[in-house]
Amino acid sequence: MEIIKKYTDLVSEAIENIKWSDQKLYDPMKYMLNLGGKKIRPALTLLGAEMAGARAEDAISQAVAVELFHNFSLIHDDIMDRADLRRGNETVHKKWDEPTGILSGDGLMVMAYEHLINNAFESTGAFIRIFSKMALDVCEGQMKDMDFEYKTPTQDEYIDMIRQKTAVLLGSALQIGFLIGKDDEESASRLYQCGVNWGIAFQIKDDYLDIYGDERIGKTVGGDILSNKKTILYLTAYENADDKDREILEKLFANHDRSQGKIDTVKAIYDKYNVGEACLSMANRYYKKGNNLFGELVIPREARKTMLKLAEMLLLREY
Amino acid sequence: MEIIKKYTDLVSEAIENIKWSDQKLYDPMKYMLNLGGKKIRPALTLLGAEMAGARAEDAISQAVAVELFHNFSLIHDDIMDRADLRRGNETVHKKWDEPTGILSGDGLMVMAYEHLINNAFESTGAFIRIFSKMALDVCEGQMKDMDFEYKTPTQDEYIDMIRQKTAVLLGSALQIGFLIGKDDEESASRLYQCGVNWGIAFQIKDDYLDIYGDERIGKTVGGDILSNKKTILYLTAYENADDKDREILEKLFANHDRSQGKIDTVKAIYDKYNVGEACLSMANRYYKKGNNLFGELVIPREARKTMLKLAEMLLLREY
Repeated sequence: MEIIKKYTDLVSEAIENIKWSDQKLYDPMKYMLNLGGKKIRPALTLLGAEMAGARAEDAISQAVAVELFHNFSLIHDDIMDRADLRRGNETVHKKWDEPTGILSGDGLMVMAYEHLINNAFESTGAFIRIFSKMALDVCEGQMKDMDFEYKTPTQDEYIDMIRQKTAVLLGSALQIGFLIGKDDEESASRLYQCGVNWGIAFQIKDDYLDIYGDERIGKTVGGDILSNKKTILYLTAYENADDKDREILEKLFANHDRSQGKIDTVKAIYDKYNVGEACLSMANRYYKKGNNLFGELVIPREARKTMLKLAEMLLLREY
Repeated sequence: MEIIKKYTDLVSEAIENIKWSDQKLYDPMKYMLNLGGKKIRPALTLLGAEMAGARAEDAISQAVAVELFHNFSLIHDDIMDRADLRRGNETVHKKWDEPTGILSGDGLMVMAYEHLINNAFESTGAFIRIFSKMALDVCEGQMKDMDFEYKTPTQDEYIDMIRQKTAVLLGSALQIGFLIGKDDEESASRLYQCGVNWGIAFQIKDDYLDIYGDERIGKTVGGDILSNKKTILYLTAYENADDKDREILEKLFANHDRSQGKIDTVKAIYDKYNVGEACLSMANRYYKKGNNLFGELVIPREARKTMLKLAEMLLLREY
């Protein structure tokens, strides 16, 4: 993304400069980090620092920590979700094996903590607390996500799950970056809340794009439907559908049919109940909530513009 | 163990007082911690604090961190090793499932970091660095241990593996405790080395007890042989055996025979080459090396006595 290229370049360079031991443990970590990814989360940390008047360069180690943690969670999630592909390539546990995936994920989390405290000085304790709270949220969120396979959640329960699993990392990334520049916990917490709301909007849009988006590299349109993932689209349809359609949805999401016909049938029900629009408007509400909170913060002009533009792009993206 | 009861009681009480969220993520953690265990590692942290002139009570949070980390590694190791039993009870991934084991292990590691920095003040950064270095050692050690299933290591390679997988945690537990009492990095590092050497002796003795020990609760005599684990016993036999015996060992450790006969045959070869004695004398060398390093430290009389007694018991234990 052009608007954050300045930041993602810094992060990519820092990741390339990580001194790796030649132990086998580190090969899957390097592999995973080399698969790319948009690096939005670490960019948020650098932008967070600028929003507090520091230089992006001052927060690089913390930005790397955020990216390492994100990759830890992807490796472990892929094992739990039995996913074969990540960013169009074999997942770690497919390319190696599950034990290697578990261990290299563990190692990435440890390395994230190491990077988090580099040059953090008196903020070290605060960073560990924020980061650990975030990490437990992510674990709790993933646990809920897995449970939803067996138990259909309400929309509210679902939003709470994506808040924990996805959104808090965006919030914490901003918060930690901000604290590098300014010892102002109240503003940093507010910025965290902005990130959480934008993050929820981002994830709702992600759910939406699974079926209404352009075909994207490494992802199948309708993939969530084929894997019976009860996204916000499904839950919105489920809560609005009549008994007959609800029964069809339940049946389809209980079998392992992986045909285009299944996608078409489900999409027809989504369309019938205007599920796509409802979800976009829900995403928009969270997006605006983030913007409103953000409006109350005093932030240098250039960084503010970039942040608002990025939040908008996360919502408006079509892939 | 009576000699460290004062410490293990403090740790048990602190663990009982952990405020758990009622999220499902935490159930396996509580289950695991409730299975007991000897709590030698957290006791070392409390003893480490006393050896630096602090009160054991001042290091409780760090001791809990050590115990949480240890349990994290047990949960993940049990998944990787496909172990069904831990301390005579079902392992976490057996009682729940693998994803739950992965996640609750992840959560325990995060909680370990949280506890590590409680009341650590200006030592926070040092603790995170020591702990993270230790944690990566443990991951690297586990990776090597798994690789040894396919490739027979030398004795030296094996010792290096148990140093990383087992011994560094004992060393770091002592080191962190010591740093609570005294900002003396040189002595703390020396104490770390004591712990590492005692830890290697401890693990060699553990290997020895698999076949030469009393029957212990939750463990089968000869269990390492049945699961084809190339312990120091095996490697010592392998390096000393004639071609014929070596071939027998190789064959036996390549099949999945789980009979008493297999144990008996292997034990006969071990006995033929005095493997038990050789391993005990090796353990003794590391034990003495730890003692020698320890002798150079200035430490309050009572704590010194307790430490030496504990190190001796770790070596002399028969179960």
